[in-house]
Amino acid sequence: MPVIRVFAKNNVIMAKRVAVILSGCGVYDGTEIHEASAVLVHLSRAGAKVQMFAPDADQMHVVNHCEGKPTEEKRNILQESARIARGEVSDLAKLDVSAFDAAIIPGGFGVAKNLSDWAVKNKDCTVLPLLEKTIKDFHKAGKPLGMCCISPVLAAKILPGCELTVGQDKECDKWPYAQTAGAVKQMGCKHVNKDVEEAHVDVKNKLVTTCAFMCNAPIHKVFDGVGVMVKETLKLA
Amino acid sequence: MPVIRVFAKNNVIMAKRVAVILSGCGVYDGTEIHEASAVLVHLSRAGAKVQMFAPDADQMHVVNHCEGKPTEEKRNILQESARIARGEVSDLAKLDVSAFDAAIIPGGFGVAKNLSDWAVKNKDCTVLPLLEKTIKDFHKAGKPLGMCCISPVLAAKILPGCELTVGQDKECDKWPYAQTAGAVKQMGCKHVNKDVEEAHVDVKNKLVTTCAFMCNAPIHKVFDGVGVMVKETLKLA
Repeated sequence: MPVIRVFAKNNVIMAKRVAVILSGCGVYDGTEIHEASAVLVHLSRAGAKVQMFAPDADQMHVVNHCEGKPTEEKRNILQESARIARGEVSDLAKLDVSAFDAAIIPGGFGVAKNLSDWAVKNKDCTVLPLLEKTIKDFHKAGKPLGMCCISPVLAAKILPGCELTVGQDKECDKWPYAQTAGAVKQMGCKHVNKDVEEAHVDVKNKLVTTCAFMCNAPIHKVFDGVGVMVKETLKLA
Repeated sequence: MPVIRVFAKNNVIMAKRVAVILSGCGVYDGTEIHEASAVLVHLSRAGAKVQMFAPDADQMHVVNHCEGKPTEEKRNILQESARIARGEVSDLAKLDVSAFDAAIIPGGFGVAKNLSDWAVKNKDCTVLPLLEKTIKDFHKAGKPLGMCCISPVLAAKILPGCELTVGQDKECDKWPYAQTAGAVKQMGCKHVNKDVEEAHVDVKNKLVTTCAFMCNAPIHKVFDGVGVMVKETLKLA
């Protein structure tokens, strides 16, 4: 895949600058690890310049990932996100939208627990005010947003009437979380059914979404679907 | 990439069965997340059947990945590995070598802290007895072992005289951990210089190694090098 480049006013070739927003480390209480890793691999291959961000706040809770049950522990979203970022992650409060061409938010329950309260309130959720402002600022500036898995619900809340996919809208073994599509429709958005290796592009809103682990699929198909989302996001940047 | 298949005696097509051994979740105190994710993506694409394992024991310590410093916390290796495994990880004590065709051990400081004491004792390290027995059993059974980053030092300790790579043996910005190659040589092994997108195959010992994040390289190159390691390991299975 060729390196994607943009030309600045002085004709210097510049890499696209992408903010990746994390919500912890682990599918049940943070960012889904393999979605984040896939985002980083595809951005790296495309020659993008990446900076990672996460809120400097306590997680909603900490889940024992062997048992799927909450523990009594406390963990900080930023510190746990640093496990994915190999130490290179900044406080979300420091994200300067003018310094980036696009933002990508991988999924995982951290999106529904730490970046919003979707896990508790579903379509009546609120988004972390700092993140809501960030998403609105990217949108107002005409800069694309890439989201996968459950993170498109953030767009559903913040960008009324947007088009997105969280996979399929009929529940079955392959699509265990299909009711999310129904919730998104109730929020006034258009849900577009897509398979795991596809992404939907809402050209008007510059919003690119893919279902990732909302589908019960082999991990390499999730990886490939995230790759399509990253590619389409960079195209719009 | 085609699905890799083996034929059983009754001519039923069977996927290769691979045990992936984890050591926590996060580069500084556990398994390097992106190496593990790359291993899983490449194994999935090759049609392998994967089971993950980790010791059910306390980590040597817990590192705040923002600061790179140990904290007072305690965490369990198996429970933290479950973050990478999305809950599907078993106690290493239950690994039955006869049920697998190959084993792969991703890197990260967890290998040098939780699976051995390499981080403290370097070439005079000892390997967790349970893991030492597992590695010896795979080796005796003629089943291949794939390792990356720092995990080849486990082979250096357990399979005297083996050939392996941890990248390059001359330190520079690209190769900040090159002294590891010297330590491996002092242990009586043959170190083979390889770039990040390559793997070395020790045919006699059925040992496949790649440097991964021992190289200061973009993450997609690490991903590709891990892919070569996985492919070569499956070829020998």
